[in-house]
Parts: sequence; structure tokens; C-alpha cells
Amino acid sequence: MSVMPAGRSRESPAAAAQRIETRVRERITPSPEELARVARVRADLVRAVQLAAEARKSPLTRALVAGSAARGTFLRDRLDIDFFLLFPPELPRAQLETEGLALAEAILTKPERKYAEHPYLRGTFQGYTVDVVPGYAIGDPSKPLTAVDRTPFHDEHLRAHQTPANVAEVRLAKLFLRSLGIYGSEARTEGFSGYLVELVLLQFGTLHALLEAARSWRLPVRLCPPGKEPPRLPPDVALILPDAVDPNRNVASALSPRNLALFILGAAAYLEHPSEEWFELPKPRHLSRADALERVARRATHVSVVEMPRPALVDDTLYPQLRKAERAIAEEAARAGFEVVGSACAAGSAALLVLVEVAHGRLSAVRVQDGPPAGLDRVGSFLEKWTAPGAPVSQGPYVREDGRLGIEVRRTERDLEAVLAVAIPRLSLGKDISPAAAERTQIRGLADQPESLELDRALVDLLGKRLPWLGPR
Amino acid sequence: MSVMPAGRSRESPAAAAQRIETRVRERITPSPEELARVARVRADLVRAVQLAAEARKSPLTRALVAGSAARGTFLRDRLDIDFFLLFPPELPRAQLETEGLALAEAILTKPERKYAEHPYLRGTFQGYTVDVVPGYAIGDPSKPLTAVDRTPFHDEHLRAHQTPANVAEVRLAKLFLRSLGIYGSEARTEGFSGYLVELVLLQFGTLHALLEAARSWRLPVRLCPPGKEPPRLPPDVALILPDAVDPNRNVASALSPRNLALFILGAAAYLEHPSEEWFELPKPRHLSRADALERVARRATHVSVVEMPRPALVDDTLYPQLRKAERAIAEEAARAGFEVVGSACAAGSAALLVLVEVAHGRLSAVRVQDGPPAGLDRVGSFLEKWTAPGAPVSQGPYVREDGRLGIEVRRTERDLEAVLAVAIPRLSLGKDISPAAAERTQIRGLADQPESLELDRALVDLLGKRLPWLGPR
Repeated sequence: MSVMPAGRSRESPAAAAQRIETRVRERITPSPEELARVARVRADLVRAVQLAAEARKSPLTRALVAGSAARGTFLRDRLDIDFFLLFPPELPRAQLETEGLALAEAILTKPERKYAEHPYLRGTFQGYTVDVVPGYAIGDPSKPLTAVDRTPFHDEHLRAHQTPANVAEVRLAKLFLRSLGIYGSEARTEGFSGYLVELVLLQFGTLHALLEAARSWRLPVRLCPPGKEPPRLPPDVALILPDAVDPNRNVASALSPRNLALFILGAAAYLEHPSEEWFELPKPRHLSRADALERVARRATHVSVVEMPRPALVDDTLYPQLRKAERAIAEEAARAGFEVVGSACAAGSAALLVLVEVAHGRLSAVRVQDGPPAGLDRVGSFLEKWTAPGAPVSQGPYVREDGRLGIEVRRTERDLEAVLAVAIPRLSLGKDISPAAAERTQIRGLADQPESLELDRALVDLLGKRLPWLGPR
Repeated sequence: MSVMPAGRSRESPAAAAQRIETRVRERITPSPEELARVARVRADLVRAVQLAAEARKSPLTRALVAGSAARGTFLRDRLDIDFFLLFPPELPRAQLETEGLALAEAILTKPERKYAEHPYLRGTFQGYTVDVVPGYAIGDPSKPLTAVDRTPFHDEHLRAHQTPANVAEVRLAKLFLRSLGIYGSEARTEGFSGYLVELVLLQFGTLHALLEAARSWRLPVRLCPPGKEPPRLPPDVALILPDAVDPNRNVASALSPRNLALFILGAAAYLEHPSEEWFELPKPRHLSRADALERVARRATHVSVVEMPRPALVDDTLYPQLRKAERAIAEEAARAGFEVVGSACAAGSAALLVLVEVAHGRLSAVRVQDGPPAGLDRVGSFLEKWTAPGAPVSQGPYVREDGRLGIEVRRTERDLEAVLAVAIPRLSLGKDISPAAAERTQIRGLADQPESLELDRALVDLLGKRLPWLGPR
């Protein structure tokens, strides 16, 4: 990790880090006026919704701003207010949505309907972007009725333990993670959720202490006493941290192994070569088709692009399916005999793209296939099949060194695009992707794929892989 | 197994087989005159060598013709007489050779020195080719001093059990095996030794009964009661049959799995479609370079030829080394990233050839390499190595999905010939092949390889693989 200049040559990395962290912390701390303004908006939101609830005799139990706007842990350039409307658990789900919608519309400007697990509304209130999220006012956070019902308990737990110094470190940590592109638990990012950051900072106190610990973490990382892991963990879990208000839940389930590894490596790299760049917005990365074609020519590989229509899904539902489709397509290429070098995917507003890079875009015309060992009953039908007139045989049948039969089959489809065109209709790509894919899928070599923003994004993932702090190559 | 015409349509395969076997058996049975002539030669040989031994006061204990010429199990067109000269076990090895040589020279015309495990002399006597083999007159066949000392015991055992009918079946079986190219236990053939054929025929009585049994054999085949296998069998043993005179020895150790499997498949094919072709000399097979290049073009593959000088070794010593060299070279190609379709080898009088067929003769310019998982100490040196100026990096370092580091390395050598030229000097090819290989090895694409008989033979092994009874393709 010796690629970044060490900055001031007399200063130790630890001293430099302290100086940098202090400066950045100051820069991002909201002013007292700012905090007062947010507090006023919180109070106004609650009052406004209570009036609206009375007006339509809504069974609203409680309204509160939770999340970073409630605790001051927000980043100044990215303040969204999460406003929770809690209803009695007895209220049917359909009514919960109707009531939430009606109240949100009563108080928000230009409300827009959104979906996560759960419909919510986004609009503006006194100039701030506000997400109005309906939920149930439950008594036991380990038995939520919707995915958001635990949030008030999270808020309560954090407020009870956070100090102003800790809140400042949470902001610093969010900035560090955002710079690495791993802040946010949405399916597209697979990074650290805000609540996860706050819990981890309660445990370690400061970002610096967290980084010192993280530099020697090994996957999977357990931030809980051994034996206290939440049950039924998926096999590729990266970080295990039980929810403070529901110990059976892993707060870090959205964090991918790749992103936790990036954090571990980033921690080590930052501690050796601290600089303010580690707290800046990540540079948007893209790679034009022309530059990509040049790279592919230098790499002497071949890139195919599968383009499918985008189904009407929100990103959080779409991305896991798109990644599944990417895996299925890359695995199919490998199964067909291609040497897969890499793959990538991207979603645009209308199209989904999956890119596959292979060592050779065209297979040899022969495929070696094993037959049964001599003496088995299957030998007869194997020989009959492969000596029949018109059998697509290049060589054989013959006996291999180990005594099994073998045959060399002539391939009919040899180009990656042709092989994928045949295979994709029978692949399981993702619940909502497969049916559409069969009909309106386009498969082309990279040179024939029309330029688009999503292509540029997928190309940088495929051909621009590099630890972000090393800079572009 | 339905590719051969069934011959006479009214006749059952079993009846046809019986008719064919009877006719072939008659055709190859030596005439009484022939047998009498061989018997006379046997007696003359013994008398001649006894006179020579007296003349030079040689410590000869016993002289006998053993092998097929002694028992009448020879093939008429291939009668070599094996003449054994047995000396006292006390005689030093060097003297054994001197005495054997002297006596052979006294009785043979144009004697020529040969080596197997053991030096012997080949010459003619009364118009017959005779191999004069010195050995020790031992008392216990399980404790031989040289590889040939068991032979008189084999002879005795077979004579004690064989009937004239059985002898006729041995000849028929040898013809069947020779037609398949799997008769002979020399290293080049890896087939059935004469002694193995005779022992197996003692057990099964007739070739037909043997074939009926063999059609459902599965490798490895045990022709001895379970638990009675000879100890210390190599892992890839095909057939286990203890020596009748030394049960710790496997008579079938020279038989390769491939050749036993070919016998099993041939047995089934013959019994379904018997014909006299199964007892004819195998057609010599070769494939010209021009035809091979045409096939390679159709297969869309690439063939490289490694040519090395032939060391001064007899075939039995050379072939195992040559096959080891073939394996080592093919494995190296695979390790370097080539998709190996097949390989072959051949020895000429001056040159050894190893052929490797790959799906693509030129690799992509990138090679994906795994790095350590984040958090290990090795991460630092991995990153240092691959971010150093001039490191041959195509892409990376980056974090893979599973949290390990990865790097894509630029390849320097990409053609199979270039890769093998770099690798071969450090490969272990075979005890007597390696040193010569490093200096005078030529590696060329098939189109650039000069034509030769051994090339044609290797090419048919590489590109003409097919069960022999199916005919050429």
C-alpha cells in the first residue's frame, strides 16, 4: 500500500490522520442553526400530521422523525427526513397504506409514491425532502409486522447511548464509507446501512478505533460474542452484528463480502497513507465503448452484451435478480466451454445489460465428451448413438487411457452470442426477468452494442476493476 | 454395435462365430510336418549348445526351448524360437552374460546383441530366428534372479495342463488380439503377453467362452478369487491374474486399462457381428500431414509438435519415458491456460515426437490470478508487488465478490509453441529424455513440422481415434 504520497514528510501517519479527521469532522458538523432548523421541521411535521389525522379521524397512534435527521447523524449534503406514521397493530394492511397515503398527501408538496418492502411517499416539506413511511406501533421489536416497525426502537436505543462526540464520529464514518462507495444498504450498493454504522460506532467509539480494528479483520467478521450469532445465517454472510433491539436479526445482512473486504483493505490503506481524499465524494466512474474496445483489443479477449427489457421493478427488487441473471449467464458460458474472464451488469431506465468477457469469442469446432466405462450396459446405446448416420462426430468413438469410452462431438454453435441466444430462453435468470428475456433479448458483440449510460457503467465494472484509492489506471 | 453387416442373414451370430472360428483355427494350425520340423530344430539347438558348452567348458546347467515354439502355441507367420541357457545361480552376472554370448555365437548365424531387462542374442539357426537368452537354473520360481528365470516353470505348468484343443484356442485368441493391436506385452504395445493368453485360455477353455465372459467385464478385472490379488498393485492396474508359478506376481501387469477396455468392447462387438476380419492382421494406420492439417482446420483447433532427439534406448525403456514426456507436456499446456483437446507421441529412429492439440493456439493477453483474502498479512506484499511500476498488470488489483483480492496479469508468451519453449527445459520429461530435450528440442506448429513416418503415426493416434472394427472415418 505504497502508492499514495505520504503527504507531509515529517508527520507520522497517525498524526496526519488525527489532523485530517479533526478538520473533516469540523467541516461536516451541522451548525447550531442548521440543527435548530431541522428540530423545528421535525416538530412541525408531527404537528401537521396530527392535525391532518384529526381532520380525517385517522387511527394514527404516533408520528415521529426517526433516522439520522432525528439524531443529527446525517451528512449535510444528503439530508433526507424519515417520518414514520405508526398505526395500531389491529389495522388491516390495506388500510395502513390508505391512511399513510392520505396523511402524507395532506402534508407534503408533490408527493410521489415509492415502493420498498412496503409503499411509502416521498415529497417536500418546508424545503426538505421527506419520506413518509407508514408502520405499526408494536410493543416488541422482535415481532415486527412490517420491515420498518423496529425503527422507533432503534432510534430510542441510539439516543440513549450516543454522545455528541459519538454523533460526530458517525458522520465521519459515513463519509469514509461513502467515499469508498459502500455506504447504503440498498440492493444496488450492498453496503453499510446507517443504523449499522451507528451501532458499530457505539461499539468502537471513534472511526479511528474502528479502522485500527478493521485493518486485521478476516471474513466473516463477528462483532458479537461467539455463539451469539443470529440464527440461520446465509452461507456467504460477511459481517455478523445482532440488532440491539432484536438479537435474532443480523443488522449487517445487506453488506456483501466484497464491500466488507474493501472496507478492511481501505482501513489499512488509509491508516498508512491518510489524506482528505478518503472523505471526498467518490468520483463517478464510467468507461466509453470506444475506450473499452481498445482495452479489449489489448487484452485479446471478447465481450458479449446481453440486453433485456427492464421489468417494472424498484432497484431493491431488481438488483438481486439482475445479479442472479449475470451469474446464470456467465455460468452458462463457462458450461458451454468458454473461458470466462469476467462479467458485469447494469440497469438503465429501460434496459438491463449483462456483459460477459471470455478469452476467446469462438469455440473450437470439437467438444470432448466422456462415455461410459467398457462393460456397462450403457455402452451399447452410447455406441449406437454416436455411430448412427448423421451423428455430429468429429472423432471416435474411442477408448480413453482409463478404459472409458470417449467421443469428440462437432459443435453447431460456436460464437458466444450464438451459444447464449440458444441457452438464455431456458435459463432461470430472475423471477421477473426470465419471461421477458426470452422474447426481447438482444445479444451482440461489444462493438455492435449501442452506446448508453448503463453500458458505460457496466464497462467500468468489467474492465476498470481497481481499488478506488489506487486511482484509475 | 450395429455398424458391421451381419454377414449371412439367416445365420445366428453364435452359429456364424462357430463357423468362422473353426475355419480360422484350421487355417492357422501348423501342419504335422511343420511341428515335426520345429521339434527337430529344438533338439538340434540343445545338442549344438551342449557341444559348444563342452568345447569351452562352460558351466551350463540346462538348455531348453521354451515359449510358444516349445508348446506349439505360436502363430505360423510369426514363429520366433526362444532358447534358454540356464547357468548355476552361483555364477556371477557378468560371467552369465559372457557365457551366454559365447555359446550363442557358437551356434547362431549372424548373431546380434539385444537388450531387454537383460542382454540376449538374436540370430538364425536352420533358417529360424532364434533368441538365445541366458538365465539362472533356480529352484523356486518366486525367487528369480533375472526376469527370465521363471520361464522354464511357466513352460512346465502349461505343458502339464494344455490339450491340443486348448493349444488351438490359444492360437485363435492370439490372432484375435493381434487383430485388435493388443497382443504383446512390450512397453510400446501394453497388451496381452503370450503367457497371459495361455493362462487365460487354460481358465476359460475356448476363445468363445473367454469372449462371452469378457463382454461384461468391468475394470479392474480380477481373474482370481477375491482377496487373492497379488500385493502392491499399482493404482491403475487393469487385470489381475496371479502367476501360476508365483502367486505374488500379476501376470497382466503390462496390460493397460485402455487395451483391456478395447478387448472388452471388441468381445461384445465380435459376438454380435462375427466375421473373419476379426482374425486378420491389423491394417497399418497413418495420417499424412496434409490430411491432418485439413482435419485440424475443420476442427478449428491447433496442433503443436515437440521434436526431441531420440536417446539410445531400446523401445521397452523408451516408451514409458516418452509417454511420461507426453503427459508432462500436455499437463504443462493445460496449466498455462490452454484447453487441451488431446495429445499423442511417437518414436522414430532418430527423433521423438510429442503432439499436443489445443482448442486455441493463442491465449488471451490476460490471466486472472487470485490473491489473499482481505485482512491477511500477505495482502501488503501482494499489493506492493502488483502496484509496483512496470508490474505486468492488465486490470486491478481489485476485490472479488468473495472478499479475496484479485489481479489480471498480462501474459508475455501467448502462443503454445512459445509457452512450451519456455516451460520444457524445466519439465521432468523422462530420465533419459530431459537433458537432451533442453538443448535440441524443436517446437513448431503442425504446418511447419517436416513430414516423417513417426509424424504420420502420431497424427493417426491424435486425429484418427476410433474403435478399429468401426473402420476408418
